[in-house]
Amino acid sequence: MDTLDAVLDRIDRDLETSLERLFALLRIKSISTDPAYKEQCRAAALHIAKDLASLDFDAEVRPTAGHPVVLAKNGNGTGPRVLFYGHYDVQPVDPLDLWTNPPFEPRVDTLPDGRRIIVARGACDDKGQVMTFIEACRAFKAVTGTVPVPITMLIEGEEECGSKNLGPFVEQHKKDLNADVALVCDTGMWDARTPAITTSLRGLVYEEVTVSAADRDLHSGLFGGAAQNPIRVLSKILAAIHDEQGKIAIPGFYDGVSELPPHVREQWAALNFTVDSFLGPIGLSVPAGEKDRLLIEQISSRPTCDVNGIIGGYTGEGSKTVIPSHATAKVSFRLVGHQDPEKIRDGFRAFARARLPADCKAEFISHAGAPAISLDWGMAQLTAAQRALTQEWGRDALLIGSGGSIPIVADFKRLLGMDTLLIGFGLDDDRIHSPNEKYDLTSFHKGTRSWARILATLAG
Amino acid sequence: MDTLDAVLDRIDRDLETSLERLFALLRIKSISTDPAYKEQCRAAALHIAKDLASLDFDAEVRPTAGHPVVLAKNGNGTGPRVLFYGHYDVQPVDPLDLWTNPPFEPRVDTLPDGRRIIVARGACDDKGQVMTFIEACRAFKAVTGTVPVPITMLIEGEEECGSKNLGPFVEQHKKDLNADVALVCDTGMWDARTPAITTSLRGLVYEEVTVSAADRDLHSGLFGGAAQNPIRVLSKILAAIHDEQGKIAIPGFYDGVSELPPHVREQWAALNFTVDSFLGPIGLSVPAGEKDRLLIEQISSRPTCDVNGIIGGYTGEGSKTVIPSHATAKVSFRLVGHQDPEKIRDGFRAFARARLPADCKAEFISHAGAPAISLDWGMAQLTAAQRALTQEWGRDALLIGSGGSIPIVADFKRLLGMDTLLIGFGLDDDRIHSPNEKYDLTSFHKGTRSWARILATLAG
Repeated sequence: MDTLDAVLDRIDRDLETSLERLFALLRIKSISTDPAYKEQCRAAALHIAKDLASLDFDAEVRPTAGHPVVLAKNGNGTGPRVLFYGHYDVQPVDPLDLWTNPPFEPRVDTLPDGRRIIVARGACDDKGQVMTFIEACRAFKAVTGTVPVPITMLIEGEEECGSKNLGPFVEQHKKDLNADVALVCDTGMWDARTPAITTSLRGLVYEEVTVSAADRDLHSGLFGGAAQNPIRVLSKILAAIHDEQGKIAIPGFYDGVSELPPHVREQWAALNFTVDSFLGPIGLSVPAGEKDRLLIEQISSRPTCDVNGIIGGYTGEGSKTVIPSHATAKVSFRLVGHQDPEKIRDGFRAFARARLPADCKAEFISHAGAPAISLDWGMAQLTAAQRALTQEWGRDALLIGSGGSIPIVADFKRLLGMDTLLIGFGLDDDRIHSPNEKYDLTSFHKGTRSWARILATLAG
Repeated sequence: MDTLDAVLDRIDRDLETSLERLFALLRIKSISTDPAYKEQCRAAALHIAKDLASLDFDAEVRPTAGHPVVLAKNGNGTGPRVLFYGHYDVQPVDPLDLWTNPPFEPRVDTLPDGRRIIVARGACDDKGQVMTFIEACRAFKAVTGTVPVPITMLIEGEEECGSKNLGPFVEQHKKDLNADVALVCDTGMWDARTPAITTSLRGLVYEEVTVSAADRDLHSGLFGGAAQNPIRVLSKILAAIHDEQGKIAIPGFYDGVSELPPHVREQWAALNFTVDSFLGPIGLSVPAGEKDRLLIEQISSRPTCDVNGIIGGYTGEGSKTVIPSHATAKVSFRLVGHQDPEKIRDGFRAFARARLPADCKAEFISHAGAPAISLDWGMAQLTAAQRALTQEWGRDALLIGSGGSIPIVADFKRLLGMDTLLIGFGLDDDRIHSPNEKYDLTSFHKGTRSWARILATLAG
């Protein structure tokens, strides 16, 4: 039995205890966006650092202006130096009443089609994915006494709230983070049987806008008709963002967006990527994006805008005849190509301000701003990883674009001059960011095996 | 000293203890719209019934499908039979942090201009106003041993949540409620020195609409661009309600709305009702209603629409890249003339449904539906009340229209064939429905005196 086979065998035999280790991490309520969970975020960082120390990593929990970062280094092994990035923080769990089980009490369940799944907040995004890599390292150490290549791990705690402090952290620790290639496990497969490497990511601008009018809440019977209503004003702004064709009407928004090369568009059109398979499972049947674009374009190569939240006035049970003094919306933009996050942000703010009637004002908070990124398809480590994935899954690993945003990837390129391989084992039905988030047991198990193969291939 | 003078004198001397009685009522947290305060609503009803019993009323707390009704009868006295209506329930108090004092701990404060005010939720709307009438009855009893005219009191507990159960209650108790004229104390003066009788009221249709799309919350990075966003759909619906001229674009909305007679419009245009005096105190400077209408038309003789609340998606601190499965708005319409509440409701629902893209659905809850009402200016009791008010305040009492809605007034007309005199002592700066609601001590004191004069005039 050669080394890789022995490592894969070890992973298979160790699956039950691997799961126990994942469950221990899933039980920690590391919701980064809510200050009430600050201590739990720190607890998750400490938990991971301790685990990595047991694998001979020199592991530390480093402070930032927000939640801390786990920085861990294991210089053993040979071949290219790898920087692995993941995040220990998770999304909020509301609406809690839609969870069939408490979100931080992980369990294994079986779907009607027989698939076994791990259900918990963070099961996929990103604790489950991070643990596939750590478990691969653990198996190598068990079999060979060490990791196969020199590895630095960077596990942050603010990915779900904009990674504001990670850019500065990377900038301050350039030397510590220096490596030949970055690996990120926070993306998905093409489908449950087909592995994929994500070679392009959309960028993200996330703005919060508050429109205010009168200096107090008003009675709509007395003032209705004469007083500006901030909900009405905000609705007009939000309604104007998309035109009738589904295009975004903010001037200059599409600057830096390229058309797909004709041969890629042809390839994509030929993919079996149907409305039925993508939208059907979530109860939808008609793509809501730009009318002249393929569905796959709408979600990967085209920029988009979504209102992620809105609140104003009386929202309790029953009725209240109030004209509120203010209303707030959270609005995010997914960027592609060379769209400039600052220009998009400024463009949105100007667009909103231009639609303010007399007596109204708008205030803004920026929650995120990162450009899109894309990889050179000729890159050596990409080819190696693709080969390893193909061997594990018995199907050609696809190179795909993703609609999501992982701001750190742009920072790695900009600050460290390093390319990133985005390899993950999530599936479209994982309900990440939703109640009843899950991760297939197969994703976890074969994901771990995939990393073992990739690391072996990189080590040569 | 004649009887009326003796009663007025008694009111003056009794002011301090009158205030104590009002404070006792204001301390009861009778928020009708929130089920958590059910018992407090009942407590307010019991409190009032007990007080009325001490004034020789045959007073009962009668159940309804919602909060109970106080029904009290005192058949003593001579002259026309009076039905007095008010409500013991109050608005919610959020946002609580804007109150300078806890909303249910009433106190007397002094404004920079020297006016003394009673500050508490319900100080004006409607507990303070109701108590002006009860205190006038109490003074009559103290001086003459009885109320001057036969009085039935109907004090309900659901005015702030649509008075859903009051119509059926009135229908079932027609005989008990039969009288010659209804008196309602839930409106305002023209200004702090000029009394007024409200002879027309806008109607109210209050709808809650929930737009839903996917069957779960989605990640905007994965589904953004392809999945319908209910907040976007709801915003488009709300934004379409008003056109660029401030008119409401729902087909048929203005059916039954008459133009003002030219001489009334002339009168209104000549009134010193300025933007500065009406909108200035709340931090606004430009009327937001129909562009070709007088400000006073916008708030009294024209129908309006306001969004009173909206919620959807992530509304906590920070950011979450979610596409929510649904979003909800509360939308109310003020009606005038002969607008039909049912047609308005159906028109709004059709308007919303017509704007639903594929995969979206809308669900509706009706919180209120009442037509506008208006009084015959030649009515005898109106003339009598106007004379009494003019004597108390030393200024001609004005006959005005109100933008607010008091659904029971239409029910009194429809079910009991009875006209209603709307006489109240609220002021534009009373902040009803807002934090720091207040009632001028002068409104309370001279309001009580006004009722004494009105009752004396009615008794002949």
